[in-house]
Amino acid sequence: MGTAPRHFLGVKPHKALLLLPFLLTFVLVGSRGESQAMDNVATERMAEESHRQDSANLLIFIMLLTLTILTIWLFKHRRFRFLHETGLAMIYGLLVGVILRFGVHVPQSTNDLVLSCAVNASPATLLVNVSGRFYEYTLKGEVSRSKGHQVQDDEMLRKVTFDPEVFFNILLPPIIFHAGYSLKRRHFFRNIGSILAYAFIGTVISCFIIGLIMYGVVSFMKMVGQLGGDFFFTDCLFFGAIVSATDPVTVLAIFAELKVDVDLYALLFGESVLNDAVAIVLSSSIVAYQPAGDNSHSFEAMAMLKSFGIFLGVFSGSFALGVATGVMTAFVTKFTKLRDFPLLETALFFLMSWSTFLLAEACGFTGVVAVLFCGITQAHYTFNNLSPDSQDRTKQLFEVLNFLAENFIFSYMGLTLFSFQSHVFNPLFIIGAFVAVFVGRAANIYPLSFLLNLGRKNKIGSNFQHVMMFAGLRGAMTFALSIRDTATYARQMMFSTTLLIVFFTVWICGGGTMPMLSFMSIPVGVDSDQEHSTTSMLDGSVRRNTKHESAWPFRIWYTFDRNYLKPLLTHSGPPLTATMPACCGPLARCLTSPQAYENEGPLYDDDADFILNDANVSSMYADVTISTDASGSHTINRKLSSNANTGCGPSDESLDHELALAEHEVAIRGTRLVLPMDDPIDPPITVTLPPPPSPPHSDPRRHRL
Amino acid sequence: MGTAPRHFLGVKPHKALLLLPFLLTFVLVGSRGESQAMDNVATERMAEESHRQDSANLLIFIMLLTLTILTIWLFKHRRFRFLHETGLAMIYGLLVGVILRFGVHVPQSTNDLVLSCAVNASPATLLVNVSGRFYEYTLKGEVSRSKGHQVQDDEMLRKVTFDPEVFFNILLPPIIFHAGYSLKRRHFFRNIGSILAYAFIGTVISCFIIGLIMYGVVSFMKMVGQLGGDFFFTDCLFFGAIVSATDPVTVLAIFAELKVDVDLYALLFGESVLNDAVAIVLSSSIVAYQPAGDNSHSFEAMAMLKSFGIFLGVFSGSFALGVATGVMTAFVTKFTKLRDFPLLETALFFLMSWSTFLLAEACGFTGVVAVLFCGITQAHYTFNNLSPDSQDRTKQLFEVLNFLAENFIFSYMGLTLFSFQSHVFNPLFIIGAFVAVFVGRAANIYPLSFLLNLGRKNKIGSNFQHVMMFAGLRGAMTFALSIRDTATYARQMMFSTTLLIVFFTVWICGGGTMPMLSFMSIPVGVDSDQEHSTTSMLDGSVRRNTKHESAWPFRIWYTFDRNYLKPLLTHSGPPLTATMPACCGPLARCLTSPQAYENEGPLYDDDADFILNDANVSSMYADVTISTDASGSHTINRKLSSNANTGCGPSDESLDHELALAEHEVAIRGTRLVLPMDDPIDPPITVTLPPPPSPPHSDPRRHRL
Repeated sequence: MGTAPRHFLGVKPHKALLLLPFLLTFVLVGSRGESQAMDNVATERMAEESHRQDSANLLIFIMLLTLTILTIWLFKHRRFRFLHETGLAMIYGLLVGVILRFGVHVPQSTNDLVLSCAVNASPATLLVNVSGRFYEYTLKGEVSRSKGHQVQDDEMLRKVTFDPEVFFNILLPPIIFHAGYSLKRRHFFRNIGSILAYAFIGTVISCFIIGLIMYGVVSFMKMVGQLGGDFFFTDCLFFGAIVSATDPVTVLAIFAELKVDVDLYALLFGESVLNDAVAIVLSSSIVAYQPAGDNSHSFEAMAMLKSFGIFLGVFSGSFALGVATGVMTAFVTKFTKLRDFPLLETALFFLMSWSTFLLAEACGFTGVVAVLFCGITQAHYTFNNLSPDSQDRTKQLFEVLNFLAENFIFSYMGLTLFSFQSHVFNPLFIIGAFVAVFVGRAANIYPLSFLLNLGRKNKIGSNFQHVMMFAGLRGAMTFALSIRDTATYARQMMFSTTLLIVFFTVWICGGGTMPMLSFMSIPVGVDSDQEHSTTSMLDGSVRRNTKHESAWPFRIWYTFDRNYLKPLLTHSGPPLTATMPACCGPLARCLTSPQAYENEGPLYDDDADFILNDANVSSMYADVTISTDASGSHTINRKLSSNANTGCGPSDESLDHELALAEHEVAIRGTRLVLPMDDPIDPPITVTLPPPPSPPHSDPRRHRL
Repeated sequence: MGTAPRHFLGVKPHKALLLLPFLLTFVLVGSRGESQAMDNVATERMAEESHRQDSANLLIFIMLLTLTILTIWLFKHRRFRFLHETGLAMIYGLLVGVILRFGVHVPQSTNDLVLSCAVNASPATLLVNVSGRFYEYTLKGEVSRSKGHQVQDDEMLRKVTFDPEVFFNILLPPIIFHAGYSLKRRHFFRNIGSILAYAFIGTVISCFIIGLIMYGVVSFMKMVGQLGGDFFFTDCLFFGAIVSATDPVTVLAIFAELKVDVDLYALLFGESVLNDAVAIVLSSSIVAYQPAGDNSHSFEAMAMLKSFGIFLGVFSGSFALGVATGVMTAFVTKFTKLRDFPLLETALFFLMSWSTFLLAEACGFTGVVAVLFCGITQAHYTFNNLSPDSQDRTKQLFEVLNFLAENFIFSYMGLTLFSFQSHVFNPLFIIGAFVAVFVGRAANIYPLSFLLNLGRKNKIGSNFQHVMMFAGLRGAMTFALSIRDTATYARQMMFSTTLLIVFFTVWICGGGTMPMLSFMSIPVGVDSDQEHSTTSMLDGSVRRNTKHESAWPFRIWYTFDRNYLKPLLTHSGPPLTATMPACCGPLARCLTSPQAYENEGPLYDDDADFILNDANVSSMYADVTISTDASGSHTINRKLSSNANTGCGPSDESLDHELALAEHEVAIRGTRLVLPMDDPIDPPITVTLPPPPSPPHSDPRRHRL
C-alpha cells in the first residue's frame, strides 16, 4: 500500500458549497461518502447507493423547476398576471413537500452508532481505531440530547434538506449580482437620495419598530404562558432585521410588464436591492451583539457601540471591495484589447465578479454585499468597455443564473414548509409578526416620504407611497437569513413565521399588485422615454427638477464621475487631458483612450440600454433640427449644446443643462424620431436616423426587470 | 431548547459536489464545518476561520485562471500559436504548485484526536458522547496505518486539493456536453463510419496493446526488483483504458484557426469526443472485473463476460438516456411556444440537459456519457426549435462553462504535479508507458485506416494518418480517470506517469502541430465550403463519394432521420403527413408543425450553422439558374430537384441526389452566390439572395472550435 494519499478522500461540504455561485447540496446524515480507495466493497456499494439517491433527490428539484418553467410559459402565453413564477414555484414546492411528508416513507437507516467512551473534547477530526484500521471522522455538529435517544426523523425529508449555507454562498450571489448589474441606472441615480433614505434609514427604522413590537408580543406570550423557550430582545431585533429586507421580484416583474412610472420603479427596485445589503449586515451586527452581552441579554452601551462599529466596518469594507474589483475589471477591459475575444472577456468578467465574493469572504466581510456593489460598478463602468457580444453574454449569463437560483429558492421555500421538522407555529406570535411587519413597513415609507417630499420637487405622491407600502414583499433574502440558524426555539419560531410572511406577501400582495395599481390610479403603460420627453418639454421645470432632485453631494459626484471616473475607466469622453489640471498632462494622455477624443460630447453611454427600447423610441422635440446624414445624432447633440450654452451661464444652471442634455442624447440614441407637426392630426413625419454605432441588440423586456 | 432540528447541520460533500455541473470544492481535513447553532463560540470562530481560508484558497485558482486569460489574450493578440491556453494554464499551475510546495509552510493543525476505544464496525455516522453532549461525526474514509502515527503532510498542500469526484461530477459534464453540442455535424455524419471505428475498435485495440506492453514492463520491473508494490494485469489494462482517451482541445483549436481540411477535423474531433465515452466505460468495466477475480487476478472467462456485459449495458443505457432526454427537450420546445420567452427556453434547455446527468447517475449509468449523447441530440434536433436568441444563449452559456472548466482542470493538473504528496515516479515505468502510448496509438490509427481505406472512396491519406497519430493528445479525461483512485501503489504510479504523459503531449505534440502540418503538407486555409463546392463541381464523383462514404446502415439512418425524426422533432419538412403511411394520417397531422408544410424541401436545417460562415459564402454552380426574387433559394432548390429527378431513377442514386441536394441547399443558405462567367478574368457577378428566414447570427469563429 505504501504511503497512502488520503487527502483526496473526504470533502468538507459547506466550505465546498460556498465556493461556486451555483451548486446545490444535499444533507445526508445517515450515509457515508467517499467511494474511492476503500477496500471494503460493501462500503463502496453503500457510497454508490447514496450517490444514486442524491442524484435522484436532486432530480426532484430539477423536475420541479422544469414544471415551473412550463407552467410559467402557459401563464405568460395566456397573459395571466396574478401569479408570478416565484409564487408558482412555491406552490409546486408545497405540493412536493406534502407528497414527501405524507406520501413517501423511507425506513430510518440504522447505522448510527453511539460511542459511549468518554472523550473530553469534540475535535474537528476523529480517528477511530477499528480492529487495527484507522477511520477518519469529521465533526458535523452537536446533536440535541433528545435526538441521541429517540430518532424520529423521517429519512426522506432529511434528504431533501439543503445546508442553509448553500443559499448564502451559491444561490444568493448570482441573484444579488444580477440585481446590481441590471439596476436602471439613470433613474436610479436621479432618485439616489430617496433610495438611500428608504434603504438605510428606513430599514433601520423598520427593524427597530418590528423588534419593539415583537418584544411586546413575546412579553405578552410569556405572561399568558404561551412561550416554550427563551426569546430575548436581541432575538426580536434579529427578527426585525431579517423581515425588513424586501424582495422586488414579483412586483417589479409586473411593473416592467405594465410599464409603470419609472420613478416608482426606480424607488422600489433601488430600495429593495440596497435594503438586502443593509438587512444582512444589520442582522450580523445584532448577532455580534449577543455574545458581548454574555447571555445576560441586557442593554450594554459598549456592546451596542461595538455592533454599530461592526455594521459600519462590514458594510464599508464590503462596499469598498466590491467597487475595487469592479474598477479593476474596468481597467483590465479598457487597457487590454480583450474585446476582440468575447469568450475570454466574458470569462474574465465572470471570474473577477466571483473573486469579489471570495475576497470579501476571505477578508471577513459579507460576500453578498460586495457582490452587489461589484455588480453596480460593473454595470456603470465595465459594461461600457465590453464588446457588444460580451455585453449580451454577460447579461444573459447572469440572467439565466438569476432565474434558476431564484426559482430554486422559492420552490425550496414551498417544500420546506413541510419538510422542515421543527416548525414552531405560534398563533399569537404569527399574528403579532404580521402586524409588526405591516407597521414596520408603514413606519419606513410614510414618515420618510413626508421628509423626502420636503426636499423633492418631484414629490412622491400618496398613491406612490401606498404602492410602496403594499409592495414590500419578503422573499429570498428573508428566507436565507432565517433558515441560516434554526438551532434555538426562538429561531425556529422565527423561521416558521417568516415562511408564512413570505407566502402571504408573495401570493396576496404580489397577486394583488394589478388591482392595487388600478385602485391607486397609477398610470400604466407609461413608456419611460415618452414620460421623459413629455417632462422635458416643460423645459424649465425639468431643469429645476433635476437640480432639486439631486442634492449637492450627488451633483458633485455626478460631475466628478462624468469628468474623471468615466473617462478614466471607460472609453467615453471627455478626454482626461481636457478635464485634468495641466500638470497631470502626461498621465492624462496615457490614461485617456483614443476613442475618448472622438466622443467629446459627454456620453455615448450605455446607461441608456437599460431604459430604452432600441427598436422604437419616439421622442418629441419641438426645438430640434434634425439632419439625416451619417452623423445625425451628433449634429443634434451639438445644436443642443450650443443652445444650452447660449441660454445660460456656466454655473449650476449649465450643469443642469448638461445633465438634461445627457438625457436628451440618450433618448436620441434610438432609431426613430417623431416630429410633432403643426396639425396634430396629420401623421407625424418619421425620420430614420442611422442606427447608433454598436447598439446592443436585445429585447427591451429583458432590461426591464 | 426544544426538539432541535439538526438535519440542517452538516452536509455530505462529495455528494453535494456531483450535483451542480459547476462547482469547486475543497478538501479540508483538519478543520470543521458547521458554524451555526453551536453554543461553543470557539468552534464557530474556527469554522469561520476555515471558511475564510477556503475562500482564500479558491481565490488562488480564480487568480490563476484570470492570469491565464490575460496571457492567452496576449498570445492571441501577438499570434503566438505554439502554446495553447490549456498548456499555459498548466504552466501557471506548475508555478503555483512550486510556490506552495517550497515557499509556503503552514503548521500542521494538531486537533486530530485518536480514539482508542475499540469499535467493531465503521458506521457512516458516529455519535460521540462528550460529557453528556452528543456530537455527530461522519465517516470520511479509511486512513492508511502509517498516517495514524506519523503525520507528515503539509497542511497547505492538502488545502488546495480537490475531491477527485469534483472532476467527474462538476467539471467534466459541461466540457463533454459542449463537445457534443458543437460537433460539426454534417462532416461528422459523413465520416461517421470511420469515426466509430477509430473511437470504438481503435480505443479497445489501444487499451489492450498498452495493457500488454505495460504488463511486460511491469514483469521486467519485478524481475529487476524495481517494483515497490502489487501491479496486476487488470491494473495494466486499466492504465491502457485511461490513457487511450484522447483530448482534442489543443490540436483542434489550431486546426480551426488554420482551417485545416474539414474531414481531418471531423475525424479527429469525432474520435476524441467518442473515445472519451468509450474509455470511461471501458475503465469502469475493467474495475468491475477485478472483484470478480477475487483478488487472484487470474483470467476468468465468466468475469470477462460479465465485464463485457457491463460495458455494453452501461454504454447503451447511458446512450439511451442521453438521447431520450434530448428527444424530450426537442418535443417540449417544439410543441410549446416557449420560443417566445428565450429566458425560459434557455433555462429549460439547461435543466433538461443537467437532468440527463442526474438521471444517468441515479440509474447507475455514466452521467458523462449520457451528457455527451444528450448534447449531440440537442444539437441535432432541439437546437433547430430554439429561438435565435436561445440558440445563441445556450451555445454561449456552455461555451463559457466549457472554457472555465477546461482551464481549471489543466491548471489544477499543473498544480497537482507538486501538491500531490504520494507521487511514484519510476523511470522504467515512465519510459515503458511513453513507448506503450506511442505504439498503442499507432496500432489504433494505421491498421484501422488501412481497413477503412478499403471501403472509402475518399481515402484517408498517409499524411492524414500521421497527423492523427501525432494529434493523440491526452487531457482532461485521462487526468480525471487517473486521479479518481490513487489509493494503491499501482494507481499512484499510474497517476504520476499519466501526468507526465499529459504534459508531454500537450506541450510537445500540441506545440508541434504547426510544424507537423507544414511538414506533412496538409493543406491549410481550406474553407470548409469552398472545399465542398469544388468537389461538388465534379458532379459524379461527389455523388459516388457520398454513396460510398456512407455505408448502407448510415444511409438508411439518414433517410429515416430526414423523413421521420426531423419532421417529428423539429419544425423542418417534409411534413409527416407526406412521409408516413396513410393509416397514421391523424397522428401525422397532429405531430407535424405548421412550418413543416412551408419548408417542403428537405431542410432549412441548422446543421449548416456549424459549418458555414453566414457572412460570406461563395459557392460556384455551373448549372444553376438563380432568381433573385423573395423566394430565391426556394427556386434554386426546386430547379435542382427536378434536375435530379429527371436525371436518374427513384432508387439509391436518387437518394444520393437528395443527400447532395441537402448539402447544396445548405451551401445556398449563405447570403452571396458567385456565378462563374465564361471569361474567368471578368469580375464575377454577385447576386445577393435574401437572407434566410431566421439566420442565427453569430460569428463563424465560435462555431469552429
